[in-house]
Amino acid sequence: MSRTLTQVPPGVQCFVGDEARRRRAIEDVVVGVFEGWDYEEIIPPLFDYADVFAGEALAHKTYSFVGRDGSLLALRPDFTSLLAKIAAGRLHDRPAPIRLYYSGEVLRYEPPKAGRQSELYQMGLEHLGGEARAADVEVLAVAAECLDRLGASGWVIALGHVGVFGGLVAAAGTDPEQTEMLRSRVEAKDVSGVRDILAGARTPPAVAEALVRLSSFAGDAPILRVAELAFAAFPDALRSVRELQGVVAALDASGLLAHVAIDLGEVRGLDYYTGFVFRVYARGLGFEVGGGGRYDTLLARFGRPMPAVGFMLGLDRVALLLQKQDRSGATTLPKAKPVHGADLGVALRDARALRADGRRVRFGNGDAA
Amino acid sequence: MSRTLTQVPPGVQCFVGDEARRRRAIEDVVVGVFEGWDYEEIIPPLFDYADVFAGEALAHKTYSFVGRDGSLLALRPDFTSLLAKIAAGRLHDRPAPIRLYYSGEVLRYEPPKAGRQSELYQMGLEHLGGEARAADVEVLAVAAECLDRLGASGWVIALGHVGVFGGLVAAAGTDPEQTEMLRSRVEAKDVSGVRDILAGARTPPAVAEALVRLSSFAGDAPILRVAELAFAAFPDALRSVRELQGVVAALDASGLLAHVAIDLGEVRGLDYYTGFVFRVYARGLGFEVGGGGRYDTLLARFGRPMPAVGFMLGLDRVALLLQKQDRSGATTLPKAKPVHGADLGVALRDARALRADGRRVRFGNGDAA
Repeated sequence: MSRTLTQVPPGVQCFVGDEARRRRAIEDVVVGVFEGWDYEEIIPPLFDYADVFAGEALAHKTYSFVGRDGSLLALRPDFTSLLAKIAAGRLHDRPAPIRLYYSGEVLRYEPPKAGRQSELYQMGLEHLGGEARAADVEVLAVAAECLDRLGASGWVIALGHVGVFGGLVAAAGTDPEQTEMLRSRVEAKDVSGVRDILAGARTPPAVAEALVRLSSFAGDAPILRVAELAFAAFPDALRSVRELQGVVAALDASGLLAHVAIDLGEVRGLDYYTGFVFRVYARGLGFEVGGGGRYDTLLARFGRPMPAVGFMLGLDRVALLLQKQDRSGATTLPKAKPVHGADLGVALRDARALRADGRRVRFGNGDAA
Repeated sequence: MSRTLTQVPPGVQCFVGDEARRRRAIEDVVVGVFEGWDYEEIIPPLFDYADVFAGEALAHKTYSFVGRDGSLLALRPDFTSLLAKIAAGRLHDRPAPIRLYYSGEVLRYEPPKAGRQSELYQMGLEHLGGEARAADVEVLAVAAECLDRLGASGWVIALGHVGVFGGLVAAAGTDPEQTEMLRSRVEAKDVSGVRDILAGARTPPAVAEALVRLSSFAGDAPILRVAELAFAAFPDALRSVRELQGVVAALDASGLLAHVAIDLGEVRGLDYYTGFVFRVYARGLGFEVGGGGRYDTLLARFGRPMPAVGFMLGLDRVALLLQKQDRSGATTLPKAKPVHGADLGVALRDARALRADGRRVRFGNGDAA
């Protein structure tokens, strides 16, 4: 054996003491916000049949194993599919809308060299079967309240919509492979890359121009007005822009506009998103702390078609953000009072009395016998 | 495929709403007690190299799988081995005693027909490298306080010691297979079964008589005095009885005697126990809600020999106990105030204002578009 018994596999987590306490404090805040908006907690299984998680985005990152009865099982790489299944199965007789939240670990196969975590702790919610625009803005308001109550500053919700890219690309004549390349070039804001792909696909000039401009629609909310004019000839893209305008108007009226940004070039994301999507960014962190979006077709896979929208914060990322913003204190405990004595029984009685008074104690003289 | 997409694998958990809230409330109480005795939380990985968990008791129940680098990994079936490894590895420069607690899931392969859970949620602690008797009674006092603060009634800590059985069996001349059969017969309080095995092993009559009597030493603490006389000729067994007497004396002085029972016939348990062991029982539940004991050799496996004692409560069992004892209420939330209106932005502003006042809200009219 080339490793020692105390070596750990790459990508696994381990938190001790203060670090664990900070995570618990963050979870308490976020769970409190979720409960405040009347979401119910769901504690789903850590693993399920592998086909529950079928989907290209995570398929190659799923840890799977064979159960005793020969079935292929998988550790959950994601909560959303699992909650969709439970809403369609175990909760099938519960009327919509259903508001559920979760807080727990997901497991993803990451190449050891990437230095990425295989274990990620996610706190999120799903709003299933509700009126779409109201659900969309509710989820955004919940996300906003989480960031506020966590004490984060300089945070922004960047809004996009998969229907803008989808509406344009449908008119571009690209094959599936070209579409994926296009998605990655738009994402990278690589204008000449976008032009090359579209030239290869003989995309009509008006469509090509619209796709080239797509990633430039990033900034404050009024840019949606410009996008509306730019995409006037593409009904599906236009409808998506107008949906976003509706969302932004509600956020504005509710006092959240200062935290809203638009990024129509944001076209990544899990393959189940069908509508508006968003990512939460904050000062001091070069990647998002969470995100979400609308997925109106996933529930049908499990036999209960209904529209849905969800959102998730990564606990590791939130912890890192608060640390970078120096907001991670305030979780220290009062110092424990040492209790010891020659008579073990008397010392234990004293320690129990202090505990009954709500004091923290540290028992014994600490020396190994 | 013979199953539907909403079917779940046998033995996995799923908790929703009130059930999840009750679990969270129980965890909060127990974690508060652990912190009160100056234990630090540790959040260990969900999986590790399979050989970390090597040990006969759990080996056949461990879910294992092959990592991307070809190494054999296993989902944790138990926390104690994992914490021992971390104390010896990551925390190697931290001086003893080390007090750690955990709260999380373990995964065990259970035969589907057994109807047992594959996912178990455990809350426990490990006291590593401290003075033995002080650590023993501290752990028992922590266990006692958990039960008290959870509001459980009629609970008892049944104390045993693996050294009593061990000391007698060493003089019995049984081979390993006979020893295991003997353990199971003592456990079952099957006197004639015990006699048969000892007759087969030609055990000296005095030893046989002591082993036959072993499981009769169950009851209130004074029975230890009787055991002391009965095992006077067996120094190792006698030393173990006297250890228990020391523990009981301290519990008595600290006001816990009413909750203490003795069961020297309690010889089951994970194979790493080396000293006193205990199980917590309570009125209304036919099996223990938790237990623990001393394991002085496990840390050496990971290169940092030190004595240790630990204890664990099963969250599922505690939840069931409190439900049976009608103590599981008091976790209801204030009712959420419905907020809706023709203007989405105005309604969202109103909802946010209520949230800022600490009210719970239920947003939107609830109809799917």
